[in-house]
Amino acid sequence: MPVKVGIISIGDELLNGLTVDSNSSWIARNISKYESLVISSKITVGDESENIKKRLNYLLNRNHEYIFITGGLGPTHDDITKRVLCEYFNCKLKLDINYHNKLKEAFIKRKIENSKHIVEQAQIIDISKPIKNNYGTALGMMISIDNSNIFVMPGVPREMEGMMNDYIIPTYISNKYKKTVNCTTILTTGIYESKLSNILKDIIEENKNFKVAFLPDYTGVKLRLSIGGKNIREKDLFDFKDKIVSKINKYVYGYNNDKLENIVAEILSKKKLSISIAESCTGGYLSKVLTDIPGSSKYFNGSVVAYSNDVKENILNIDKVLLKKYGAVSKQVALEMAQSIKTIFKTDIGVSTTGISGPGGGSADKPVGTIYICIIYKEKKIIKKFHLIQDRDIHRKVAVQVALNIIRLSII
Amino acid sequence: MPVKVGIISIGDELLNGLTVDSNSSWIARNISKYESLVISSKITVGDESENIKKRLNYLLNRNHEYIFITGGLGPTHDDITKRVLCEYFNCKLKLDINYHNKLKEAFIKRKIENSKHIVEQAQIIDISKPIKNNYGTALGMMISIDNSNIFVMPGVPREMEGMMNDYIIPTYISNKYKKTVNCTTILTTGIYESKLSNILKDIIEENKNFKVAFLPDYTGVKLRLSIGGKNIREKDLFDFKDKIVSKINKYVYGYNNDKLENIVAEILSKKKLSISIAESCTGGYLSKVLTDIPGSSKYFNGSVVAYSNDVKENILNIDKVLLKKYGAVSKQVALEMAQSIKTIFKTDIGVSTTGISGPGGGSADKPVGTIYICIIYKEKKIIKKFHLIQDRDIHRKVAVQVALNIIRLSII
Repeated sequence: MPVKVGIISIGDELLNGLTVDSNSSWIARNISKYESLVISSKITVGDESENIKKRLNYLLNRNHEYIFITGGLGPTHDDITKRVLCEYFNCKLKLDINYHNKLKEAFIKRKIENSKHIVEQAQIIDISKPIKNNYGTALGMMISIDNSNIFVMPGVPREMEGMMNDYIIPTYISNKYKKTVNCTTILTTGIYESKLSNILKDIIEENKNFKVAFLPDYTGVKLRLSIGGKNIREKDLFDFKDKIVSKINKYVYGYNNDKLENIVAEILSKKKLSISIAESCTGGYLSKVLTDIPGSSKYFNGSVVAYSNDVKENILNIDKVLLKKYGAVSKQVALEMAQSIKTIFKTDIGVSTTGISGPGGGSADKPVGTIYICIIYKEKKIIKKFHLIQDRDIHRKVAVQVALNIIRLSII
Repeated sequence: MPVKVGIISIGDELLNGLTVDSNSSWIARNISKYESLVISSKITVGDESENIKKRLNYLLNRNHEYIFITGGLGPTHDDITKRVLCEYFNCKLKLDINYHNKLKEAFIKRKIENSKHIVEQAQIIDISKPIKNNYGTALGMMISIDNSNIFVMPGVPREMEGMMNDYIIPTYISNKYKKTVNCTTILTTGIYESKLSNILKDIIEENKNFKVAFLPDYTGVKLRLSIGGKNIREKDLFDFKDKIVSKINKYVYGYNNDKLENIVAEILSKKKLSISIAESCTGGYLSKVLTDIPGSSKYFNGSVVAYSNDVKENILNIDKVLLKKYGAVSKQVALEMAQSIKTIFKTDIGVSTTGISGPGGGSADKPVGTIYICIIYKEKKIIKKFHLIQDRDIHRKVAVQVALNIIRLSII
């Protein structure tokens, strides 16, 4: 029997679309991983008492066993969720003394004075159980009524996710329902959607029990495979996935939530390779992405962001004559940059990027979008030229993805 | 009199949270710009006939004058919106012959064979008017019933936005309702929500005609001011905004969609100042953010990402003895890094960051979260120590915001 789950997101800024509601998607995604749990309603409502009550009533009257509410628990006057729930259930607020003391201690330690807010943040509805907030001050609540469990959480995504992961899912969900995989995603880069679709046309036609969605963006195409037919199991899905992957192997860099930088980092760590980067057009973006990863100091020594030609000359020792003859955006300079950073920083791998992200700086010869990416590793010297999209933000983002993929393919 | 607007997003992938529903936010944001139009409901529903009908019924029974429906118009088997609407209104599909001919021509031109889908895509409900799709194949529909106008659009954001911008808004909205600014956002950083709320408590209490929402995240607090009372005009809103800003001026860095990096870039450009950065823990992130901005080569010369101590010693010439005595994460080293990058890169401003983003690398003396940020500009040498949050991603993000704000306040 399916178990009905409802989600209510509270906040004027969500209703007006000024903030995109990512919380309800997060909850839905993480709850629908469990067998039997079916999200039947996702509702957004403003900071407005009557509407909040109506929606909650709607879900309770329609046998929703789990109701997740986010938003409106903060310390300011527009945070009305607790008051509205008190009215709805005809009950009062009570102070969670333990939590209040903890907050007081923390505030004293951080030298913040704010006793009134602390009291408010530590109050919960008297018929509820508290849910600890490990990432903020507002306490969450769990209310059990008839056959429904209502979870009330703050709207700050990190705080909500923390409560779900640390308490709600382990206590109420994962010990009662089996986790099940009914979809999986293959991550590809370096191939167009239409070409992928051509390669996979027959295999998709022959396997009607699975749905295949092509999700393209500028950095690659994701393939979402899901179970479409009845009596199809996890194992069948994974077999189908393997069949697909065998056809497009060289474009596949990972699965589901993998990130290309993490894949690259794993290979670097495993092979004990060190890397340094000379970045021109990417302006630090490639270094940023590699250092997003915990433990990156193991393989990443550092980089020079050589945005001006001065820096290219004086720090990377690029020959002035070369710069003048070929220009900073050239095969020759890219090669020198990679060689130079590898030598100066004494790393196994030297990488360089030089290009024109725009909107200015393009010419007939080298239009906006042009980029050279070079990697030097052992005896390998790989240098590639691309014409990427003429939009600064996307150009930079795609350049980083392309560079990471070149690194991956060079050291794999 | 407020005019009620409802939005229904249809799609299993939205309900499951695999796709974040950005369409309903887009519609809400663009419709609530018009006077009198009030978004009262945003509902997400799966590809499931009964639920779609229930929700539509709910909105129609509650006098929603405008109802926007997106999703489920595509050519695949799970696209059921048209069939469900036929059942609900007890009517049939009709072929839009003009549109069908156009699609046929386009498909022949692109050498795609697909006559069955073409017929389906050109069918609309017989009581509806067609809405042209300039960015895809599925025709949209407008259904007028009693006092409600129902607009049915595809779920592909570009196609939906195209129908709204090209047809629906000009034909039904912008000629009937005046565009108005009913909300504005003040961006602050460097102050906690609770402290802001204390400073502004009285002024908010005294101005009940305006709603003030506090939207905190780790990089700062946004204050969204909106018109709450009747007969309040744009001018009154801006006056109220000025009053608020006068109380918290030193924390305000911008408005609405401003970004701190753009504000800093503007000041740098205006004052013709050049900047270079020595980044340790931020690993290129600060440079990345400054070079996100078109034209950044005017003020940004470059940076050294000195992730390893080797790079600090050999490229930034930081004294080995100093590094050993105080450690890389210290006031002394931060100061030397900023001084050194300023000297080597010959810029007006030198900035440095050195800290522990974690999860590893912390000690009792210097726990994860510790960071020193230094800026040297003219005779000013500012060096600050912070204990930021102990989460790598957030630590890095906040460090960049804090550094940008220190730069802003130093050169303003």
